[in-house]
Amino acid sequence: MDNNRPLILITNDDGHAAKGLRKLTALMRTLGEVAVISTDEVMSAKSHSCTIHEKLYPRLVREELGFKEFRCNGTPVDCVKLAYQKLLPRNPDLVVSGINHGINAASTVVYSGTIGAVIEACMNGLNAIGFSLDSLDPEADFDHLDTAILEITKKVLKEGLPKGVCLNVNFPKRSEEPLKGIRLCRQASCRWVEYFDEHYDENGDMFYDLKGELVSDDILPGTDLYAIKHNYVAVVPTCYDWTAHGCLETMKDYEQISIK
Amino acid sequence: MDNNRPLILITNDDGHAAKGLRKLTALMRTLGEVAVISTDEVMSAKSHSCTIHEKLYPRLVREELGFKEFRCNGTPVDCVKLAYQKLLPRNPDLVVSGINHGINAASTVVYSGTIGAVIEACMNGLNAIGFSLDSLDPEADFDHLDTAILEITKKVLKEGLPKGVCLNVNFPKRSEEPLKGIRLCRQASCRWVEYFDEHYDENGDMFYDLKGELVSDDILPGTDLYAIKHNYVAVVPTCYDWTAHGCLETMKDYEQISIK
Repeated sequence: MDNNRPLILITNDDGHAAKGLRKLTALMRTLGEVAVISTDEVMSAKSHSCTIHEKLYPRLVREELGFKEFRCNGTPVDCVKLAYQKLLPRNPDLVVSGINHGINAASTVVYSGTIGAVIEACMNGLNAIGFSLDSLDPEADFDHLDTAILEITKKVLKEGLPKGVCLNVNFPKRSEEPLKGIRLCRQASCRWVEYFDEHYDENGDMFYDLKGELVSDDILPGTDLYAIKHNYVAVVPTCYDWTAHGCLETMKDYEQISIK
Repeated sequence: MDNNRPLILITNDDGHAAKGLRKLTALMRTLGEVAVISTDEVMSAKSHSCTIHEKLYPRLVREELGFKEFRCNGTPVDCVKLAYQKLLPRNPDLVVSGINHGINAASTVVYSGTIGAVIEACMNGLNAIGFSLDSLDPEADFDHLDTAILEITKKVLKEGLPKGVCLNVNFPKRSEEPLKGIRLCRQASCRWVEYFDEHYDENGDMFYDLKGELVSDDILPGTDLYAIKHNYVAVVPTCYDWTAHGCLETMKDYEQISIK
């Protein structure tokens, strides 16, 4: 691979055939050398899972000038670990994940394989961005995102990101009007409200399947959900320090508990 | 179940047979009504995974006065979702997860199924605590933790936790000296450094298995790793807002990117 062009590693959690991955690959190839490592299967809601008791088989499936494509039977986090430690000739200058078919904004980041891969890269000192579109449609239109993705990526390649910080970028789905611009946001608070429908299988045993919807009472100015709702690109600087720092003083009385 | 005693939900990611789960169950039964829902299999490193394309079969396996035990084929996060939405007569007053066989301190929280369950409970407005011991030994000694676990739990049952905050509690393994006390800590920064050993399977295909060790240059006073190293119980107030709040001002120039 050419050492004069940036090396960009791409992964996702929708599997190798996803339209969003193909789109992101085409865009990144205009900016640098590209290696893709995608999961064999759809890995939605795999979060930061990694594979510690099974065999991992990464395979090179395509190679041409400035481009390599691998597939792997693991999770998105496994893909990142394997790629930068074993498969690439040098550390990538940037890891991008997506474009996810479905929103990864607000507190839903905790479930996301797309963002799991981004956090994994960030923990290892790599610049990393996750891109997600607020549409679950496998044939979703991604063309309205081209400029935003390219410009955000170019800025990160040029300037880098602060230590321990990655970007979680969510896009509104295509509408009549063009995207209004970019908003730097905090992650809104939300939760999934599930409907566990009761079903019976062929043996008469009851099982549940998990379906739900995102519910938030926090779609306020300054949040990612608010930005997306108003047709802005939501950029959340994201970290893996989950300490509730505001509580380190207020909960100091936990240190007074006697454990003798 | 008795409405006058607190209802405590217990889960874990080491499976129903784990010694740490049995220990935690025995302790919690001295404090309230208890429901256990554990995974059929060991679910280490499943993080915040949940099951969205497979059938979930929770089963009641044991019931006696003030106590119910369920098992489920899902992840720890599935267990929490199912339990409080479908299996329990009312919302639990507290969700506890563990005692995990292995440390879940520092940035390793991102991989943890134990902590995934705790975060899931917290996102749904429930008080939640994760307990983990710095020992992977299946026969580890947990007896030195009794008082600390009971006293921390009693405090949370009495006072509750701030909205959006749960507790991640890590214990040093048993040593010659008794535990020194409790420290309220921030999560240290760390990463796993993996050794991907190359192996060949019966077909001659190369595969990797993931082994690694925790590496940190952040074992500083005030961190959980520092507390554990010095034989203190590390309590980290933990949240699911991953926004790097300090960057919301410093990175404001992202809003100036033109995406026309």
